[in-house]
Amino acid sequence: MRNNRICQLFGIQYPLIQAGMVWASGWRLAAAVSEAGGLGILGAGSMHPETLENHIQKLKAVTNKPFGVNLPLLYPEMELLIDVLIREQVPIVFTSAGNPRLWTSFLKDRGCTVIHVVSSVSFALKAIEAGVDGVVAEGFEAGGHNGREETTTMTLLPLVRKSISAPLIAAGGIATGEAMLAAFALGAEAVQVGSRFVASLEASCHEAFKKKVIDSGEGSTELTLKELTPVRLLKNSFYEQVKRHYAEGAKPEILAQLLGKGRAKKGMFEGDLEEGELEIGQVAALIDTIIPASAIVEEMLSAYNTTLARLQQIGPIDL
Amino acid sequence: MRNNRICQLFGIQYPLIQAGMVWASGWRLAAAVSEAGGLGILGAGSMHPETLENHIQKLKAVTNKPFGVNLPLLYPEMELLIDVLIREQVPIVFTSAGNPRLWTSFLKDRGCTVIHVVSSVSFALKAIEAGVDGVVAEGFEAGGHNGREETTTMTLLPLVRKSISAPLIAAGGIATGEAMLAAFALGAEAVQVGSRFVASLEASCHEAFKKKVIDSGEGSTELTLKELTPVRLLKNSFYEQVKRHYAEGAKPEILAQLLGKGRAKKGMFEGDLEEGELEIGQVAALIDTIIPASAIVEEMLSAYNTTLARLQQIGPIDL
Repeated sequence: MRNNRICQLFGIQYPLIQAGMVWASGWRLAAAVSEAGGLGILGAGSMHPETLENHIQKLKAVTNKPFGVNLPLLYPEMELLIDVLIREQVPIVFTSAGNPRLWTSFLKDRGCTVIHVVSSVSFALKAIEAGVDGVVAEGFEAGGHNGREETTTMTLLPLVRKSISAPLIAAGGIATGEAMLAAFALGAEAVQVGSRFVASLEASCHEAFKKKVIDSGEGSTELTLKELTPVRLLKNSFYEQVKRHYAEGAKPEILAQLLGKGRAKKGMFEGDLEEGELEIGQVAALIDTIIPASAIVEEMLSAYNTTLARLQQIGPIDL
Repeated sequence: MRNNRICQLFGIQYPLIQAGMVWASGWRLAAAVSEAGGLGILGAGSMHPETLENHIQKLKAVTNKPFGVNLPLLYPEMELLIDVLIREQVPIVFTSAGNPRLWTSFLKDRGCTVIHVVSSVSFALKAIEAGVDGVVAEGFEAGGHNGREETTTMTLLPLVRKSISAPLIAAGGIATGEAMLAAFALGAEAVQVGSRFVASLEASCHEAFKKKVIDSGEGSTELTLKELTPVRLLKNSFYEQVKRHYAEGAKPEILAQLLGKGRAKKGMFEGDLEEGELEIGQVAALIDTIIPASAIVEEMLSAYNTTLARLQQIGPIDL
């Protein structure tokens, strides 16, 4: 992996990035992943500016490895959050959920490496035009907010790979070394892993949510609320209420009212598994242990190697 | 690939199967793929018994390689179609869209190898229980009829691989050698390729439909009509009518009435791109040539090898 562009760009050992998820990606998780040789990312989407500053300082106190911050551009307090990033000299910023033209030059002029998360080729091209250093292409199976095109990782990755030459990170459905190798086959140079790290000891989300994740199975999630911002959720009472609203033909305003404020915090951070919003990827069905983040990194990298060896063993096809 | 279980099971050279698609998979396409060393499959879902018999006989007249027939179990005239399969000693039957317990023993007792197409682990387990020789696990991105769980190929394959030890064929989003290798990384032993073969010279669908497929891009398809049988369609006037019906809160009966009979034939076989139903996978966005089926097989296998070589070149991760 010595020539891996993502490793070089970020100054990390392994092309494995921990997603900056709301209510799960605090300093403990990011520090553990960065210390393990990947890239740890703080999820600023669920942090006020002072909270973010606090997490960055705690993170810096325990590791001098590179780390990043994820910034969903549509969230409030953006200017204050950006101030924190600049003041704390955050080396790497992953922007998402918004227009990459808004802040890319500003951040790059101040020394940040900027990556934008996209769900389609057209957004990937816009991000490149805005001057980002690379993109994360995130498929339909991913947890949390997602694109309207519903393009899956299997289809999205080669489409984006064909369209841009910049460094490409795969996301959506990747919780194992097998999937990491699959993403590399499809043209990715690194993977961003979310759901798997929710079920880590260091994730800052509620214990009850972690347990719900490892207990979930096939068909436990759905991409819904497409009229607002599409989001993949674990099915629970809140989800059933959403379904009932749909069955009754509820307009977007009514859905927004049902969603209200603080549902995600209530579910993922406070552990209200019934009334809260529980964001997770389809791949939760494959996850059944809560282990240290460093063990997740090790397991994935080691399975990547085992899978590569297995494919080498099968060998090329005699033509 | 000498020890590949799918190659051994079917007696074919390459673990590449052409999907038995309605209105596209006639004897010319199946013969071309079987002659090229893959497995060609007739799509009985759009054939009356006498048409199927005719296609089987024409196919046998031009190749003595193994071939298969796809049988959507919910279609009418099933007993007559089965009679044809037995009379013509069809060696391999892929069943789909129905209960695998219905015909698996019957077919196996008469010497057929039986594979069932599934969209979930629970259906995979039912198929194994019914005695099938292997399963096709088909992800959400696939064209045509699909499961309700919306599980993508990236997530579905490892879930099914973990649950069954029988031979596993991947489908959904696979039109290239890169995706074929990705599927192998995720645990598949062969791939079933649909959309790519729609855009082949030999496919029996209408020329206008083939052109529409290669002209389509990202976001051109959607999985819809979930209240009837979920189906992935190219967006056209008919699709817009479906959307309008949904916006008006139409009940399933009204949707069924809109769909009516013969929409798929009208679109894919007769080339009515506006009023017809056009079934294709998300991966259509990646396809931009109409070429001979043998060239598709060659391109895919050769890209599989190139991609394997690229991953070997990158090498394992130093742990």
